[in-house]
Amino acid sequence: MDKLSFAIKSLGRSIYHSPLGDIDFVKDEERVLFDVLWGKIKDQLHSDELITLERAGPRERLYFDSARTVAGIATCGGLSPGLNNVISSLVMQLSHQYKVADIIGIRYGYRGLHIDQKINPLRLTPAVVEDIHNSGGSILGSSRGYSDPVKIVDALQQYGINVFFAIGGDGTVRGAIEVVEEIERRGLDIAVINIPKTIDNDIPFITKTFGFETSFAEAVEAIRCAHVEAKGAPNGIGIVKLMGRESGFIAAQASLAQKDVNYVLVPEIDFDLEGPYGLFQNLEQRLKRRGHALIVVAEGAGQKFFRDEQAIYDASGNKKLCDIGGYLKQKMEEYFESKHIDVSVKYIDPSYIIRSVPANPSDAVYCGFLAENAVHAAMAGKTRLIIGKWNSMFIHLPMDIITVGRKKIDPKDALWRSVKLSTGQPF
Amino acid sequence: MDKLSFAIKSLGRSIYHSPLGDIDFVKDEERVLFDVLWGKIKDQLHSDELITLERAGPRERLYFDSARTVAGIATCGGLSPGLNNVISSLVMQLSHQYKVADIIGIRYGYRGLHIDQKINPLRLTPAVVEDIHNSGGSILGSSRGYSDPVKIVDALQQYGINVFFAIGGDGTVRGAIEVVEEIERRGLDIAVINIPKTIDNDIPFITKTFGFETSFAEAVEAIRCAHVEAKGAPNGIGIVKLMGRESGFIAAQASLAQKDVNYVLVPEIDFDLEGPYGLFQNLEQRLKRRGHALIVVAEGAGQKFFRDEQAIYDASGNKKLCDIGGYLKQKMEEYFESKHIDVSVKYIDPSYIIRSVPANPSDAVYCGFLAENAVHAAMAGKTRLIIGKWNSMFIHLPMDIITVGRKKIDPKDALWRSVKLSTGQPF
Amino acid sequence: MDKLSFAIKSLGRSIYHSPLGDIDFVKDEERVLFDVLWGKIKDQLHSDELITLERAGPRERLYFDSARTVAGIATCGGLSPGLNNVISSLVMQLSHQYKVADIIGIRYGYRGLHIDQKINPLRLTPAVVEDIHNSGGSILGSSRGYSDPVKIVDALQQYGINVFFAIGGDGTVRGAIEVVEEIERRGLDIAVINIPKTIDNDIPFITKTFGFETSFAEAVEAIRCAHVEAKGAPNGIGIVKLMGRESGFIAAQASLAQKDVNYVLVPEIDFDLEGPYGLFQNLEQRLKRRGHALIVVAEGAGQKFFRDEQAIYDASGNKKLCDIGGYLKQKMEEYFESKHIDVSVKYIDPSYIIRSVPANPSDAVYCGFLAENAVHAAMAGKTRLIIGKWNSMFIHLPMDIITVGRKKIDPKDALWRSVKLSTGQPF
Amino acid sequence: MDKLSFAIKSLGRSIYHSPLGDIDFVKDEERVLFDVLWGKIKDQLHSDELITLERAGPRERLYFDSARTVAGIATCGGLSPGLNNVISSLVMQLSHQYKVADIIGIRYGYRGLHIDQKINPLRLTPAVVEDIHNSGGSILGSSRGYSDPVKIVDALQQYGINVFFAIGGDGTVRGAIEVVEEIERRGLDIAVINIPKTIDNDIPFITKTFGFETSFAEAVEAIRCAHVEAKGAPNGIGIVKLMGRESGFIAAQASLAQKDVNYVLVPEIDFDLEGPYGLFQNLEQRLKRRGHALIVVAEGAGQKFFRDEQAIYDASGNKKLCDIGGYLKQKMEEYFESKHIDVSVKYIDPSYIIRSVPANPSDAVYCGFLAENAVHAAMAGKTRLIIGKWNSMFIHLPMDIITVGRKKIDPKDALWRSVKLSTGQPF
Repeated sequence: MDKLSFAIKSLGRSIYHSPLGDIDFVKDEERVLFDVLWGKIKDQLHSDELITLERAGPRERLYFDSARTVAGIATCGGLSPGLNNVISSLVMQLSHQYKVADIIGIRYGYRGLHIDQKINPLRLTPAVVEDIHNSGGSILGSSRGYSDPVKIVDALQQYGINVFFAIGGDGTVRGAIEVVEEIERRGLDIAVINIPKTIDNDIPFITKTFGFETSFAEAVEAIRCAHVEAKGAPNGIGIVKLMGRESGFIAAQASLAQKDVNYVLVPEIDFDLEGPYGLFQNLEQRLKRRGHALIVVAEGAGQKFFRDEQAIYDASGNKKLCDIGGYLKQKMEEYFESKHIDVSVKYIDPSYIIRSVPANPSDAVYCGFLAENAVHAAMAGKTRLIIGKWNSMFIHLPMDIITVGRKKIDPKDALWRSVKLSTGQPF
Repeated sequence: MDKLSFAIKSLGRSIYHSPLGDIDFVKDEERVLFDVLWGKIKDQLHSDELITLERAGPRERLYFDSARTVAGIATCGGLSPGLNNVISSLVMQLSHQYKVADIIGIRYGYRGLHIDQKINPLRLTPAVVEDIHNSGGSILGSSRGYSDPVKIVDALQQYGINVFFAIGGDGTVRGAIEVVEEIERRGLDIAVINIPKTIDNDIPFITKTFGFETSFAEAVEAIRCAHVEAKGAPNGIGIVKLMGRESGFIAAQASLAQKDVNYVLVPEIDFDLEGPYGLFQNLEQRLKRRGHALIVVAEGAGQKFFRDEQAIYDASGNKKLCDIGGYLKQKMEEYFESKHIDVSVKYIDPSYIIRSVPANPSDAVYCGFLAENAVHAAMAGKTRLIIGKWNSMFIHLPMDIITVGRKKIDPKDALWRSVKLSTGQPF
Repeated sequence: MDKLSFAIKSLGRSIYHSPLGDIDFVKDEERVLFDVLWGKIKDQLHSDELITLERAGPRERLYFDSARTVAGIATCGGLSPGLNNVISSLVMQLSHQYKVADIIGIRYGYRGLHIDQKINPLRLTPAVVEDIHNSGGSILGSSRGYSDPVKIVDALQQYGINVFFAIGGDGTVRGAIEVVEEIERRGLDIAVINIPKTIDNDIPFITKTFGFETSFAEAVEAIRCAHVEAKGAPNGIGIVKLMGRESGFIAAQASLAQKDVNYVLVPEIDFDLEGPYGLFQNLEQRLKRRGHALIVVAEGAGQKFFRDEQAIYDASGNKKLCDIGGYLKQKMEEYFESKHIDVSVKYIDPSYIIRSVPANPSDAVYCGFLAENAVHAAMAGKTRLIIGKWNSMFIHLPMDIITVGRKKIDPKDALWRSVKLSTGQPF
Repeated sequence: MDKLSFAIKSLGRSIYHSPLGDIDFVKDEERVLFDVLWGKIKDQLHSDELITLERAGPRERLYFDSARTVAGIATCGGLSPGLNNVISSLVMQLSHQYKVADIIGIRYGYRGLHIDQKINPLRLTPAVVEDIHNSGGSILGSSRGYSDPVKIVDALQQYGINVFFAIGGDGTVRGAIEVVEEIERRGLDIAVINIPKTIDNDIPFITKTFGFETSFAEAVEAIRCAHVEAKGAPNGIGIVKLMGRESGFIAAQASLAQKDVNYVLVPEIDFDLEGPYGLFQNLEQRLKRRGHALIVVAEGAGQKFFRDEQAIYDASGNKKLCDIGGYLKQKMEEYFESKHIDVSVKYIDPSYIIRSVPANPSDAVYCGFLAENAVHAAMAGKTRLIIGKWNSMFIHLPMDIITVGRKKIDPKDALWRSVKLSTGQPF
């Protein structure tokens, strides 16, 4: 991607005074460096390829007139801790700071914008959202699929929505881009802002997605239990499958937090099961030495073992992953049976528990800032953008970055080095 | 069972002075009424069939000489919260109160008493057990099977063990009875005491087994998450499978603690899936009315649906249950597909997480008292007994009560009435 | 108290059919034995002084006609975990089981029944109470004092209340007795039922008050922190003050659950600070040996040290206790300074945190049963009664038992013996 | 401070090969930009005042020969979550990665390096530290004061320590600078590295100190309880005092995470109690409107009210703060009494509980990286440095930055704006 792709779209000239009063407003010219190593910056200066990102924050002039603005909010895709915090903060910010009186909660994601689905929206007010941050999930509900841009824009028009906040991941952004294009086609004045949600923390240019800290903290509890189970039986082996379709950040971080893990298997690092450098022989050695072992595996790891399986896709268009946890359990039981070694394998899949807990305090605060900046951007008439955080600054990203690919663990980087130090694993 | 079966076996006459000093000792003649309703007692008086249980507690005279006593401790079967607390309290009580210096931790249950398994025991001291109550599982490990009484008594003799504490459930007690009989055959002076462990809380004559409170408290967390998942999707259905092979106490109590559950399915209450009074039609009505539903199912519920399956048994001799949770999910998806109703079913099986957490404070205290009374009984030369609690009193039960059957939920009782009130379910 | 005092008052003859349908109703003649030791019962039989308690539960005939019944609920005195669970279960039981449509939540305890205080009541419905069990405190609020029986009965009449549930402790029951007498004076048909609330668990004839388990579990967290603080400094001493005005059950149980405590000081056990058998010399020895110490003190312990202080009373008529925790800290610092021993004393008072957490699952279930039985009793026209649990059975107690005194720790009993075993303390 | 002050001292030329093998080593020339806004950087380029920080990470050449290196570790000052994680990770990194066999744990901070205090050190190995991350506090203990550089360097020499890790805050760094100077005076080859510990998160050039996230998460629990207490009484007011001597970050973040707080009082923002713009009149209005209020106050807030008090200093040389929480409670009770308004003020000081909990998973991971980078720096012969993190990169800071002052909340910044939005407070 060249640096120009980082320009942010705007609906038009901002003419209304911000109601936020005497604060330090942020100017569109304020841009955040992508790199922070001075050596790289110097090179970029010379080659004229400096990458900078538009800084988020309150603008002095707004595109929308608060008094006549209608906001829409939807949560799409799988659950993630923090959805209610984002909803709550959007409503508080819109209502108290920008005096937007009309806020419409769309139920069950984009599906709630398909009028033929007959799903009534929910009017959102500060009173409605007062306590929702104490619960996991989303009071609006969520769902996959249903991203017909024509129907969605029909609904946005019917509800009179001017600023639309779509909280969701990849699929949601892909849908939002089509919605923006349909809006442009119709020449409408609707801003579309994404607050990125992916429990896997794999969005490029975004240091950390909301819900990630809560998720790996919750994963630690499952790991602790699997460790107890592993130690509780002769040759006990605990397997914990965690989220991580293409990036193993949850698995890696959770293993660093609870240092009892012996093997972390992630999509980014290739590994074999059989053979002299495979998992099983190493595991056999460890069992001989210590009598138990603990394995954490990201759901997207080892998908090469399922090459012959027919690919299936979910409603968001994501390829359904084969169950690497169950596969590991079965293959390892076969391996040790063939070696006449008695093992006791306990397999835990805590995914639904992890993703449905309330946000922890760090995530709660983070969700608040994401929401506040999303509202600033929307009211200033910016559109087709994702709210992010980079180098400790909140930023605007064009939705198109979603096509760049995923943020992944670099096997040569400090994170993976620490994982290997902590686990002692060979790969 | 007639009342005589409640007599407790003793190795012989107690002649040593208890080292516990100036306290209120309990006499063997102190007996606890089984029934507490005066009407029933009156009837029993007349029919001469009054049921009473021997009261547990410190005896003034001991059978074993503390200075020459060697204690053995083993944890058998599946994990349950509180095992470490029981171990820790046994060691503290033996060591500090009774001055027993030699305490041998048998590893991996009865298996550690099969010398041919080459599993070294662990010397237990107050320093070793000081912090173990903070961790789940058992520092001794556990396992199923390996209950050859000849080998076990060989090992008890080889280690010089006089008082042997077997912490475990049904299978453990059945094994212990054979061990006692082998001890008698050889004319040995070894007391065998069971501290009953069953997460299902289904032992008759015992109000509550240790770990039960922690378990259903932990189950509540899984239910809370399933509720979030159910509400998070259109026609979302959460299924949580909980422990409960023949008795649904965990499922029932957890559902009463977290009142969001709509259906509790337990082994004691028959139910159908199809038909006008079956689960599915009722569920369909509820989805129409509320848009989501939450089901808690005990693992032993609905086993009638698997009548045609081949029975498989685990190493403890328990019949392996078929997975009612997965079955429900599949059948219900088929049902709703046939009705062209879109549903989103999330199935959570938190069993390994539940059973491996540390005991909560209530259970911790309870484990302590069970252990203290087990030591009192053993030092007084009692054997073939289970430590229990009934009508707020700690008691001695003969191991033979294990043959009486299980404690079960009475569908006409207050517990089930409350469940039905709370869920609104028809069965 | 003689056994006659355990008779329960009734408003009159019950004539209405219970709407509970085909269940096992409880008859008034069913009585629960107070003692369960057969030896004691035998003696009582001979002396004709057998103590029995009326069994709680659903009655087949009701005094009140559900269709025309108005219920009132108030929570009085200090906060305790479980208040919202009791409120919620009362409402569910009244509404769903007994079809009582009119339920009035009185705000801020008896104060809300003083019309001149201008506190509007809250209409309670199943929808209002649906989620309140997830929060600590009481949605009705609470307060002390304001127990003018004339004003209270005026308000009951004005609101048309027939069955009044007063959730509270000693002071609340004393107030309720006066209210009942004023009701009798006016010849009204109002049942008054108390659900006993005392975090101290010191009510006689009641095995365990609601909120107690949650409280001592929460106290364990504070103890754990104080232990960390004590070990973190040279000669570190942690002091944790817990609830317990006249009975040290929370202090004792919490210390048994978290075995790091070295001294438990409770109102029932006398102790000195100075002198050869006093706390300080023993503490000094321990510091020499181990370098740190952990003390748990019930708020009512050691009040003899404040004999010269002027007594102050709170609005409930309870004598304000002097701060034994602060006193211990100051005196101990003086003592060690005089001995030229550097110590680091950290004093933690977690009372407000303990009492305001939500009920844990055990307490949640218990609150539900207390509430259900309270409704059964009220609808049957019983009055002037306290709902209790004794020997695993729910029972009715006359309010007058409140005058009998407190349930206290018996220094010769198993509980205190365990505390001494666990702490190693001399007193 | 000019940019030159950010140069890092080195003991000499690094000649040994790193044992870390084939990884991406970091070069000393790699420098991290202090500012990330391109506008600021441009200005700095022109004025030749660009501020950059040395990047932390593994160096290819080491100053110390692993085989002959002795490491020392001490934890100084007050407790903070994460100390045990840092200790554990230092030991793992030194031992497993750098093969340093000799690691000495100094007990009770600098005091343990005063030989006349007769405090034996603790030998640290991977086995010793295996489980310590599960406990709060520091297994080494901590203390204030005792920073005589001559005695400390005597001990470092006596123990043969080459690399010394001092975990602590301001006072610790001030002491470490004197130690470094004494080392230089004697011409010794000892590297001194600080891992900064301040629960207040107020160190400049460091985005977040370890333990901070855990602390404000724990503070949230106390706030939740105070909220329950405030709502539980008529005109209930909850006051929670949190850490924050000169910076109110914990108070601000905790209030953003749990949005029930109505007033956040921090050292950076001046406020009055009396008068038309003071806290009390605003509070009175709020009580009229809502019936309860919740106040969070940082310990360093409002110290102007104690101007007449005699200043007292602790052993670390920190001025003892006067108790603003107790002062607020007293003054506010006087105020409302003078207005004949009944209020119920509950004051909670959870500081000892907050600082002694184990690190949460986020902090645990962060502690690990800090420790790893500290070891990299020490082995490369760098000294007089603090390990920090800035703009998502781990960096080296000279100890002298401690003199620059504190990181503080900027009243015009997004953090405080969010606090005001969330609380609605006027100042």
